Amino acid sequence: MRVEIWSDIACPWCYIGKARFEKGLESFEHRADVEVVHRSFELDPGHAKDDVAPVVDMIAAKFGRSRQEALAMEEQVASHARSEGLGYRVGDRDHGNTFDIHRLLHLAKARGRQDELLSVLYRANFAEERSVYDLETLVDLAVEAGLDEAETRVLLADEDAFADEVRADEREAAELGATGVPFFVLDRRYGVSGGQPAEVFTQALEQAWQGRAITPVGGVTGDDPAATCDADGSCEIPGSHTHP
Amino acid sequence: MRVEIWSDIACPWCYIGKARFEKGLESFEHRADVEVVHRSFELDPGHAKDDVAPVVDMIAAKFGRSRQEALAMEEQVASHARSEGLGYRVGDRDHGNTFDIHRLLHLAKARGRQDELLSVLYRANFAEERSVYDLETLVDLAVEAGLDEAETRVLLADEDAFADEVRADEREAAELGATGVPFFVLDRRYGVSGGQPAEVFTQALEQAWQGRAITPVGGVTGDDPAATCDADGSCEIPGSHTHP
Repeated sequence: MRVEIWSDIACPWCYIGKARFEKGLESFEHRADVEVVHRSFELDPGHAKDDVAPVVDMIAAKFGRSRQEALAMEEQVASHARSEGLGYRVGDRDHGNTFDIHRLLHLAKARGRQDELLSVLYRANFAEERSVYDLETLVDLAVEAGLDEAETRVLLADEDAFADEVRADEREAAELGATGVPFFVLDRRYGVSGGQPAEVFTQALEQAWQGRAITPVGGVTGDDPAATCDADGSCEIPGSHTHP
Repeated sequence: MRVEIWSDIACPWCYIGKARFEKGLESFEHRADVEVVHRSFELDPGHAKDDVAPVVDMIAAKFGRSRQEALAMEEQVASHARSEGLGYRVGDRDHGNTFDIHRLLHLAKARGRQDELLSVLYRANFAEERSVYDLETLVDLAVEAGLDEAETRVLLADEDAFADEVRADEREAAELGATGVPFFVLDRRYGVSGGQPAEVFTQALEQAWQGRAITPVGGVTGDDPAATCDADGSCEIPGSHTHP
């Protein structure tokens, strides 16, 4: 079974939701048969690439709140994070454009280090308030996640690298009806929206596992073998004799 | 959309089916949104690892045919392959245990070279009759597909490397009802069994594309945002005010 998770490193509920999903997965009997794939979703795609500023200032400006009110709102999310055992500093976390970070996560996927990189990025952004928008910090984090430093630098310098993959993920999220993140899709059949409690994820995993059924197309099923090779060593050609 | 293809390098219909699927995919409007993943299925898992012999001899022995009859059967499959523009020599293709080849295909997947390696292996096995069961040949083929030679040798020498991944694929094939290969599964929802004509694959892709629908679990959908961060920069907490 495959679970796809659309998220953005800038999204607090994605950070919390990842931990809750993993807790829900722990309680799922068939967890060894679950493959997790992370997909890109920019919360703020129009944000200028060179505009990096503390998130509390962005909140205050965008929603007309005082810096104190914005900090209080951050505290509220922080309490949810901490109840999941996650570090969450409330102070001067940066906000910026995450497109390059999504491109880097696609490189990490190709190298088998995607989940590691996402975990490292979340921790840096929320628990350590290291700026993931700073090139040198991002390179350090990529190396911590097991990526090659030189390859990371080449990717970050080439703005086309994995750009199509990021946009394809975002297009798919829209097609699947996602309006926000985190957005979890199980076997392209069941969806969970938001950083819900762990039990909801366990329930969704169980429902998706039960609901696994393949609809045959084109005269499929074992009754009508069409040009297949079977475990007995024979290769059937329709209307012909057995052939290995 | 994701298509998973269970196959074995030793299976002629998998070789032909891969070409037919790719032709069917070419005619599919949303082909840019299709991701293909190859999965492991050993046709002959009990075959001794050190027993490598010409496949026509194996056919003759197993089904009580003469070598001449076995060659005629190979010719029949070859004609199907050639009508797809595929090379297919009928002579002394080897038969053996494919477990190590499946492990290598999993390494190739982790390195983003899986489809390349599978294509190279099929061509070597069927069109060139290079023995994929010979270590040095296999290493050469891996390098042709873009894998690192040293890493390939380390993997092949360590019989546990990616062994669990091969077995997990095979377990999943059984759970999904596969009785032979090639076995194609579209978004874990629709299945095509056998190396069917290209049009069947196009039809299956269209059907799967139309049938895409996500069932929400746990109070999902846009009506009831539960702890999500939205494109407007806000992060909803259920029962609370808007928080970015």
